[in-house]
Amino acid sequence: MDAKLIVDEVRLTPILISDPPLLNVQGVHQPYTPRLVVEVITRGGVSGLGETYGDGVYLDLARPLAEALPGRSVTDVNALFALAEATDPGRDPGSGSGAEAAAEAAEEAGVDAGGLRGVRTAEKLRLSVVSAFETACLDALGKTLGLPVHALLGGKVRDSVEFSAYLFHRWATHPAGGPVDDWGAALDPAGIVAQARRFDRAYGFRSFKLKGGVFAPEQEIAAIRALAEEFPGRPLRLDPNGAWSVETSLSVARELKGVLEYLEDPASGTGAMAEIAAGTEVPLATNMCVTTFEEVPEAFAKGAVRIVLCDHHYWGGLGRTRELAALCRTYGVGLSMHSNTHLGISLAAMTQVAATLPELHHACDTHYPWQTEDVVTTRPVFREGRLTVSDAPGLGVELDREALATLHRRWREDDGRYRNRDDAAAMRTAHPNWTPHTW
Amino acid sequence: MDAKLIVDEVRLTPILISDPPLLNVQGVHQPYTPRLVVEVITRGGVSGLGETYGDGVYLDLARPLAEALPGRSVTDVNALFALAEATDPGRDPGSGSGAEAAAEAAEEAGVDAGGLRGVRTAEKLRLSVVSAFETACLDALGKTLGLPVHALLGGKVRDSVEFSAYLFHRWATHPAGGPVDDWGAALDPAGIVAQARRFDRAYGFRSFKLKGGVFAPEQEIAAIRALAEEFPGRPLRLDPNGAWSVETSLSVARELKGVLEYLEDPASGTGAMAEIAAGTEVPLATNMCVTTFEEVPEAFAKGAVRIVLCDHHYWGGLGRTRELAALCRTYGVGLSMHSNTHLGISLAAMTQVAATLPELHHACDTHYPWQTEDVVTTRPVFREGRLTVSDAPGLGVELDREALATLHRRWREDDGRYRNRDDAAAMRTAHPNWTPHTW
Repeated sequence: MDAKLIVDEVRLTPILISDPPLLNVQGVHQPYTPRLVVEVITRGGVSGLGETYGDGVYLDLARPLAEALPGRSVTDVNALFALAEATDPGRDPGSGSGAEAAAEAAEEAGVDAGGLRGVRTAEKLRLSVVSAFETACLDALGKTLGLPVHALLGGKVRDSVEFSAYLFHRWATHPAGGPVDDWGAALDPAGIVAQARRFDRAYGFRSFKLKGGVFAPEQEIAAIRALAEEFPGRPLRLDPNGAWSVETSLSVARELKGVLEYLEDPASGTGAMAEIAAGTEVPLATNMCVTTFEEVPEAFAKGAVRIVLCDHHYWGGLGRTRELAALCRTYGVGLSMHSNTHLGISLAAMTQVAATLPELHHACDTHYPWQTEDVVTTRPVFREGRLTVSDAPGLGVELDREALATLHRRWREDDGRYRNRDDAAAMRTAHPNWTPHTW
Repeated sequence: MDAKLIVDEVRLTPILISDPPLLNVQGVHQPYTPRLVVEVITRGGVSGLGETYGDGVYLDLARPLAEALPGRSVTDVNALFALAEATDPGRDPGSGSGAEAAAEAAEEAGVDAGGLRGVRTAEKLRLSVVSAFETACLDALGKTLGLPVHALLGGKVRDSVEFSAYLFHRWATHPAGGPVDDWGAALDPAGIVAQARRFDRAYGFRSFKLKGGVFAPEQEIAAIRALAEEFPGRPLRLDPNGAWSVETSLSVARELKGVLEYLEDPASGTGAMAEIAAGTEVPLATNMCVTTFEEVPEAFAKGAVRIVLCDHHYWGGLGRTRELAALCRTYGVGLSMHSNTHLGISLAAMTQVAATLPELHHACDTHYPWQTEDVVTTRPVFREGRLTVSDAPGLGVELDREALATLHRRWREDDGRYRNRDDAAAMRTAHPNWTPHTW
């Protein structure tokens, strides 16, 4: 194999990025959220970039994988899965510090720092780590060869990718202090509509997704109705992250039939989703009950979902995302794309893979417009709700090392408060006795 | 996109290659079998190679696709599927010369020149044509970049690929004349064992597959038993190409339980296969009831097969073969590889993709040792039943232009007798009233 494609070094840089006080069923976004930037540097001197979750459980897996990579080729992305498993410290009986242990601990704590992703397993953690390494390898490969990542994935089938505006109920400021933006509070339907108007004006988004599960379903139904009135004919989605019972979900679906493009994870678990699906014509989407390949067969067999939200961080990278698309195509299940808080590296990766998927018939989610900081030199610009697919080598983004250093310093200097995302803990700074609501 | 990756020209060369009188349920291999060699030549002057079925129905689809390719990048393999559909002459209402019409005609004739592949559809024909174009594009891309095709598919996960010996009942010579080899006849268990011994000696194959559906099941059971006695512990497969009833299949499975690695397509159709699967512990494999993605869900839901034989010619190329592998992994279905009569270009493609599939736990089928002619300059050599995975750029094979010209001349000078493979017609030259047997 070409020596210039051999990995010389892997750099891991955990960072803390500003995040607004966005509300969801599990609480509120912390003022700062951990992310991990992965740099794969080849002997040819090319640096490939990847980005994923930055909580401790992910770092624990990323470090030994980073140590194992030098000497391998950046073309060897198929081998990353076995390598991640082999280097998982949890595989060493007795160490107790690996993904299995971390997953168990996280499950016991009842918190999913990875972002509302169903039951956490060691496999899920590993796949999220692999995703950043795979993306970084493909970026390095593309930069070396002078090819965009989409060309390494078989080529783009569209020149721009559509994204949806991601609407959140939110506070104006974080209760414990932290970064402040100029969006203000949005705590009722009028606030949501105002937020949507700004997204529409600033970026031209055609689709709107409302994060639900925050207020009583009646209020969230009212917000969707208000959006439908303000933006007639535009695709609208509602996602309460599994906060509702089957009965509530069916009642909301009845209310919003014909109004919603899809209803995302109204209830938790494949069984509940299947019950709801059987009782409504509103298409159900998920990024909670189907987030790994092993969760697919039961959900598809039960007809629990009509749309799966892909997410290369969840599924193990861009190649696996394409495999999920093939699976959905085979089973006649639709495809959309999920987002969690992320920066420009991930956005570039999302755009590159989305460009290659003929099966993607829904606008992709992205939190990106909420982010005021980034580690890439040039922030991409949404126009008419779309991003142009970069044909530049690799992902088409460059690292802003100064910005990276600043955000890493914030992580280093953090007293442990924000290094692991915990929306419930953030909520309890304002409401000490808060527990998640369900309806 | 890099100008040197743009397709400048596509050359299609139909050829007729010598084939021995191998027997199957549909008759006997003709003395000559049509194949199509696809060359995709880039503006950089690099020639990429692909190989597929060469019957008229495939040529009719390949020609307009070849005309549409110049000006596109060899990286744009995802777009080939839509392009093949758009250029299918059958899409033009009234032309009647396209894949739909051809598929209908072939179905009416009750013959499947594509090789025992279930009901023929326009989609299946198109995918087989696309496969050769995709392979040729990847070969050209790899040669341009200095990377083996496996690296373009995410990298090999093994350094050699195991193949199985493909045992056939056969005649010593073709009844109507034609090429003669030194294998002699094999028309009983002793003949099959002798054939297997030679394969073992010459190439070191560990696995043996017997093409069945030729003689009464009792005789084929006896042949398998004789192989098991001669080669204790070696994986053995039997494939009657759907020639048996459910009852016969169950009876054979009872007889050969514990002897067979798997039983391949004992009966035709997903329903029959599911009935058999429910009644035996012998794993069932298929390359007949599951040969496209749309056939997957029913077969998996019914538990009709435990192993799917991938075949990049069937499934639409190397990328789609990897998608099938992901599907099988997801549903806990095993993966093996199918073969039809093919030359060294296809063998190289099979080896490259097989090298990238962690899910491949069975030796691949190949007819290759039966072929005495080739269009590549160096014939690969099986050692211990395996082929070393080439790390040379592209597929790692070069075209022997003289050999290609010779085999193309044979095709040009053919009076129409062999340009479309028809095993039944070949059988009727010896037995004019022959019709396929079923048991």
